[in-house]
Amino acid sequence: MNHTVYLSFNTKKKIDIINITNQVNRAISDSKVKDGLVLVNPMHITAAVIINDNESGLHQDYLRVLEKLVPYYADYRHNDTGEDNAAAHIWRQLIGHQVVMPITNGKLDLGTWEQIFYFEFDGQRQKRVLVKIIGDQ
Amino acid sequence: MNHTVYLSFNTKKKIDIINITNQVNRAISDSKVKDGLVLVNPMHITAAVIINDNESGLHQDYLRVLEKLVPYYADYRHNDTGEDNAAAHIWRQLIGHQVVMPITNGKLDLGTWEQIFYFEFDGQRQKRVLVKIIGDQ
Amino acid sequence: MNHTVYLSFNTKKKIDIINITNQVNRAISDSKVKDGLVLVNPMHITAAVIINDNESGLHQDYLRVLEKLVPYYADYRHNDTGEDNAAAHIWRQLIGHQVVMPITNGKLDLGTWEQIFYFEFDGQRQKRVLVKIIGDQ
Repeated sequence: MNHTVYLSFNTKKKIDIINITNQVNRAISDSKVKDGLVLVNPMHITAAVIINDNESGLHQDYLRVLEKLVPYYADYRHNDTGEDNAAAHIWRQLIGHQVVMPITNGKLDLGTWEQIFYFEFDGQRQKRVLVKIIGDQ
Repeated sequence: MNHTVYLSFNTKKKIDIINITNQVNRAISDSKVKDGLVLVNPMHITAAVIINDNESGLHQDYLRVLEKLVPYYADYRHNDTGEDNAAAHIWRQLIGHQVVMPITNGKLDLGTWEQIFYFEFDGQRQKRVLVKIIGDQ
Repeated sequence: MNHTVYLSFNTKKKIDIINITNQVNRAISDSKVKDGLVLVNPMHITAAVIINDNESGLHQDYLRVLEKLVPYYADYRHNDTGEDNAAAHIWRQLIGHQVVMPITNGKLDLGTWEQIFYFEFDGQRQKRVLVKIIGDQ
């Protein structure tokens, strides 16, 4: 039996990083799936879900590199439509926008430092992340 | 029952972006899968499949950023082999080359603005995209 | 029945690229799965698994582009913690850190030039890559 959960986020800051590993493990536990795959996909196109290290210095480095490569406030055609978030759309593609992770023995099968993060690049409003679990109970 | 479809593209332009959301939804409908996952993977390594906004200004922004970061015509070792598409190989890695998307109630479970796009970076010839659907009917 | 394999790597060089297509196909063969999906996910967050061309010039191009965009030895907050691998964490996000590939007729369903590579960005120590196979036997 598959299992689908919709997580909700509304960050106080426009750009923010949230560790969602526990929320994904809770969804897996609720699904009763013991072995399979979990897709974690942001339903908004100015956000990303990635796997990396739970280290705040590294998180600053990610944001500084993205700002250097693709400055948030610069000249973008998308922003001619009245938006100001073109860079957020691009950042989420560069950083890797979604993850599929393994489930073994009823939980995320992670390496020592692997954690799942939600990267918000245009926050301060309601956003959703879809968690779809498939596998054997 | 799984279901596999091979989509074909032959773009008139060397670099092009095509909305393939309807083609993926048609494959899901044909599969009769009601809940599961769909992998959309280009079978050529100078193309990408991504999720983003159906807005032409943003599509221009993507291509302008890729050209700025990795100029299409520059000095690449791969092009010493007689090819001219090294940058196309690199662009598709930077932008995110494949997607896995959720199927709920027999169709793509998308956020309001999520659409699936085929990004061709070395076109004007036959290319294929594999769509593999797994889940419960 | 799902099937899980943990591949191990310990590269002699700090930065290295290894073709793992045959190892993934062997895991699929051992699984007896005829049709499904295989996730290939590095369990370490300074490595990546990607699909691209088995051409050494192109591999040099990848590394040269990453070094140009995000120099390995530069000023990173993560390295204030005593690490020297901040760029390795960032490279693996830019290049695309994991792949999900289709299995048809009991093996990888690849385009002519698609091959699976392990990209090591902080090697000379034991690393693991998880291969999770799901589908129908």
